[in-house]
Amino acid sequence: MGIILGDNQYGKAENRLVRIYRDSPRHEIHDVNVSTALRGDFAAAHLRGDQGNVLPTDTQKQTAYSFAKERGLTSIESYGLELARHFVDTVAPVDAARVEIEEFAWQRVLVDGAEHDHTWVRKGQEVRTASVTVEGRGDEQRTWITGGLKDLVILKSTGSEFHGFHEDSYTLLRPTTDRVMATSLVAKWRFTTTEADWNEVYEGVKAILVKQFAVVHSLALQQTLYEMGKAVLEAYDFIAEVRLSAPNKHHFLYDLSPFGVANDNEVFHADDRPYGLIQASVTRDDAPDPGPAWRQYTGLV
Amino acid sequence: MGIILGDNQYGKAENRLVRIYRDSPRHEIHDVNVSTALRGDFAAAHLRGDQGNVLPTDTQKQTAYSFAKERGLTSIESYGLELARHFVDTVAPVDAARVEIEEFAWQRVLVDGAEHDHTWVRKGQEVRTASVTVEGRGDEQRTWITGGLKDLVILKSTGSEFHGFHEDSYTLLRPTTDRVMATSLVAKWRFTTTEADWNEVYEGVKAILVKQFAVVHSLALQQTLYEMGKAVLEAYDFIAEVRLSAPNKHHFLYDLSPFGVANDNEVFHADDRPYGLIQASVTRDDAPDPGPAWRQYTGLV
Amino acid sequence: MGIILGDNQYGKAENRLVRIYRDSPRHEIHDVNVSTALRGDFAAAHLRGDQGNVLPTDTQKQTAYSFAKERGLTSIESYGLELARHFVDTVAPVDAARVEIEEFAWQRVLVDGAEHDHTWVRKGQEVRTASVTVEGRGDEQRTWITGGLKDLVILKSTGSEFHGFHEDSYTLLRPTTDRVMATSLVAKWRFTTTEADWNEVYEGVKAILVKQFAVVHSLALQQTLYEMGKAVLEAYDFIAEVRLSAPNKHHFLYDLSPFGVANDNEVFHADDRPYGLIQASVTRDDAPDPGPAWRQYTGLV
Amino acid sequence: MGIILGDNQYGKAENRLVRIYRDSPRHEIHDVNVSTALRGDFAAAHLRGDQGNVLPTDTQKQTAYSFAKERGLTSIESYGLELARHFVDTVAPVDAARVEIEEFAWQRVLVDGAEHDHTWVRKGQEVRTASVTVEGRGDEQRTWITGGLKDLVILKSTGSEFHGFHEDSYTLLRPTTDRVMATSLVAKWRFTTTEADWNEVYEGVKAILVKQFAVVHSLALQQTLYEMGKAVLEAYDFIAEVRLSAPNKHHFLYDLSPFGVANDNEVFHADDRPYGLIQASVTRDDAPDPGPAWRQYTGLV
Repeated sequence: MGIILGDNQYGKAENRLVRIYRDSPRHEIHDVNVSTALRGDFAAAHLRGDQGNVLPTDTQKQTAYSFAKERGLTSIESYGLELARHFVDTVAPVDAARVEIEEFAWQRVLVDGAEHDHTWVRKGQEVRTASVTVEGRGDEQRTWITGGLKDLVILKSTGSEFHGFHEDSYTLLRPTTDRVMATSLVAKWRFTTTEADWNEVYEGVKAILVKQFAVVHSLALQQTLYEMGKAVLEAYDFIAEVRLSAPNKHHFLYDLSPFGVANDNEVFHADDRPYGLIQASVTRDDAPDPGPAWRQYTGLV
Repeated sequence: MGIILGDNQYGKAENRLVRIYRDSPRHEIHDVNVSTALRGDFAAAHLRGDQGNVLPTDTQKQTAYSFAKERGLTSIESYGLELARHFVDTVAPVDAARVEIEEFAWQRVLVDGAEHDHTWVRKGQEVRTASVTVEGRGDEQRTWITGGLKDLVILKSTGSEFHGFHEDSYTLLRPTTDRVMATSLVAKWRFTTTEADWNEVYEGVKAILVKQFAVVHSLALQQTLYEMGKAVLEAYDFIAEVRLSAPNKHHFLYDLSPFGVANDNEVFHADDRPYGLIQASVTRDDAPDPGPAWRQYTGLV
Repeated sequence: MGIILGDNQYGKAENRLVRIYRDSPRHEIHDVNVSTALRGDFAAAHLRGDQGNVLPTDTQKQTAYSFAKERGLTSIESYGLELARHFVDTVAPVDAARVEIEEFAWQRVLVDGAEHDHTWVRKGQEVRTASVTVEGRGDEQRTWITGGLKDLVILKSTGSEFHGFHEDSYTLLRPTTDRVMATSLVAKWRFTTTEADWNEVYEGVKAILVKQFAVVHSLALQQTLYEMGKAVLEAYDFIAEVRLSAPNKHHFLYDLSPFGVANDNEVFHADDRPYGLIQASVTRDDAPDPGPAWRQYTGLV
Repeated sequence: MGIILGDNQYGKAENRLVRIYRDSPRHEIHDVNVSTALRGDFAAAHLRGDQGNVLPTDTQKQTAYSFAKERGLTSIESYGLELARHFVDTVAPVDAARVEIEEFAWQRVLVDGAEHDHTWVRKGQEVRTASVTVEGRGDEQRTWITGGLKDLVILKSTGSEFHGFHEDSYTLLRPTTDRVMATSLVAKWRFTTTEADWNEVYEGVKAILVKQFAVVHSLALQQTLYEMGKAVLEAYDFIAEVRLSAPNKHHFLYDLSPFGVANDNEVFHADDRPYGLIQASVTRDDAPDPGPAWRQYTGLV
């Protein structure tokens, strides 16, 4: 019996990088949070404190900022791909690189009805996410890309039921045929391509997720999630799998009867905790093996 | 020399109330965080634990939820006014009531380009705020209303300078004639009326603040704030004062010269802390005394 | 009628400064969050963008870090006093300075039962706070110091009642003679001295607040707060006023009767929101005027 | 090619449960955040909205609260085991249950030097965590338990070096032989037993982790982490693996030389982001397969 080093990775997390394009008077902005991690032969650093194989996390940071100019930053997937490939291709001890990125959207402010050239407000809605994992060099190199979003808070005030459930001696819940359904959606999708119009795909997937949430008459949050994932797979053949995590943000009908006041699904208490938490993957039956696509680093994406 | 009870107030904070209007298939939603506080003759509760004058905070909560139906909730200013007046008018030991409200905006989702009747995503941008303070009964009753917003994150990528400042032996900062200027704005404005089209005024004030941030060529964040407040006062004669608090969210130009890469205001590090913090009030020279308008309760609005 | 500049202040907020004393092998650590604000003749900056009177916030930051070495940092009150006096005494356009500080306590780790010389864990309990306001120069100079703490989460599992309260038609609450009482205390106290053994006083005040919460048989959180403040004033004649803000963090007895399980104040749900919020000041009847002591800058202290 | 349901689980997350033992005047408190998830045959709920197999998340909540009394709550591992077994053993459609728990420690307040019987302050230091996964029934039943902690903020002011690292054209970092090293540790350990004195083991593991951080003269955070994990495995033969995730919370030496002030590792800026992030597993070479031990639900533990 011996004690050994297991899986390990290290890098620089949460580089808050803002890239402005100002080639014309109408500037463009990309506001991201980039994390990079390296995997490889780092046993000596762990066992003896020998850093010979360790590219400093500070160097990873410098590279992230420099690449935003050298290679550009127009989509988080393509920028992440540049960064991940660079580390694997140029740093000998590195076997694989994982890049995780959050993007915060901005929208141009309106001045007397016209979009302003160089002023924005932060959109504040969902955060767009992506991960890129690159393993190996040359012909052996393999790449996994996931896109995603989180913190998309969405609510429907009708069109949601919940009944016919399994009961045991701890079951007090009453069935309902009309309730508020709300969540703060986390979704991730796994690409089987490394080339796409990433920004267009993102907008497309988001629109599908939102539409399904709205139009599916829901008998369960599980059903809604499945329909959301399925519609994405039907629309994009280069997406192999959609993973969804959805807190059921409870909106409890407030009992106003002690005050002689009717409350026909009009006044609710939005409760913080606890919340239901429903998680499901929707996938293709011939989806390729995910490999390290879902092996996280920061937990942010 | 004696020890005495000073200022005091108590209530229920952060009631997370959602009001749905469903009189037609096209529902409406108002999502708020309501806090209520009472001021009055509560010395016995403090000195002897005698609750005879104390209306429970639970009762204040019940009232807040019931009033969302009984009186309606279409603007936070009007709803707050109903609540505050109720406590002062009907609870004998109460001399004054303070109601503070945050509102979270939602926008209808688009399904194939059309707005959906009963599904929304949380807008996620700024939080709208209001406070209502009512003192006294009958002809003696006085009322103070403030509107506001917070967390409006706004950025301009050019049109901002900073130079000519006072220097001492600790001054290292270099002047600049072109920088990113960004803030997360908190603004509050004090009304001299108790009747207005509150929602329209809110949208109007917000549009003015955003416009001034964009169009004022800024020599200092102080100057920009002053112009923002001034423009609001010029537009609305029933607003007497605007208070602004603006962190200067530093975007530091990233030094890429060690890598031989030019960086002409294109790549920035968005730093978390510390940040500049600029606060100013813009007011009328004949503004009425604010009374208790700015005496806070929760610190949320 | 004209539009004018009202109250204003500006500075650098949240400098996260750590000071290590390493004059002997047994190091000492002080971990603080410092904010500084200047008040004075800054009209030109607001009205015309003229920075001639404006000492940059970056300079204020440099000074804060340098003073931690030049003047030392052994108590937040004394360090804040050095900083505030410096700005008023040496920067001509400055009329007054406000320094606000949070301190995060650390405790030495134990290695085989012995305290380690240079390793600590963050204590994680309450945050200590202080503010220093200095106005004027020379013989006219006046100084206000407040100490404080926040986020002191304290709970008693018995010894708390609530009954005999005022009722109206919205009152549903049932009286109780035994409940859990818990809060996350914010306390601030105003000194009438500028010289004290600040660290000793802090420990003393904290011990009194905690003791009173424990030993007072509570008929209301209001009563407990009053006794806490009163005991502090009785112990320290150079403290003129204590301000307390205490959320009533509700612990609701969980109803297990549907399952035939007795629950005699043993199982509770700790609810997040809403919460009661009780605020009171306890003061001396001959307390000197607070002046600008309570005029906040960051809202953090 | 078809679209299918992949992995899924659902439950109630973040039940904020407080258990008081009051059998003697000296009460005891356990303050936890419990999440429960079920895995099994829930395809019908996803594909058709048929809830017949779905035990409501509300029922899971009721059970969690009732079990705190029925079965007791003296350690989070044993309580989690009771809950997980219950769901698998009694709910037919359930194949496996995952219970995740956070525990917040409290310490008795001192009144005149003596511990109080029923008043505590929240300790505020690290959060203790555990997960329990139970699969199958009867003789086939298998169980995985992990313990852990998070948010243990620990710092050493000397005894840490970093040099001899790999360099490339983006490397600017200078080597150092004396720096502050600080982290906010997340650690998880996997048990190979289902019976232990859980509270004693927790205190033991924590003491070992803290001691190693202090006494190992560090040439890299990687080395320190490895020594921490190794020491735990050496001390407890029923722990098979330790997983560590450690942000390198940078404390940058502040440059005071422009002011003619020496700074010999005395004044630091504690930066928020970015941070290094080092992750490593230390394991036995004959460790049993982890199975679903690391398959998360909430991301909280």
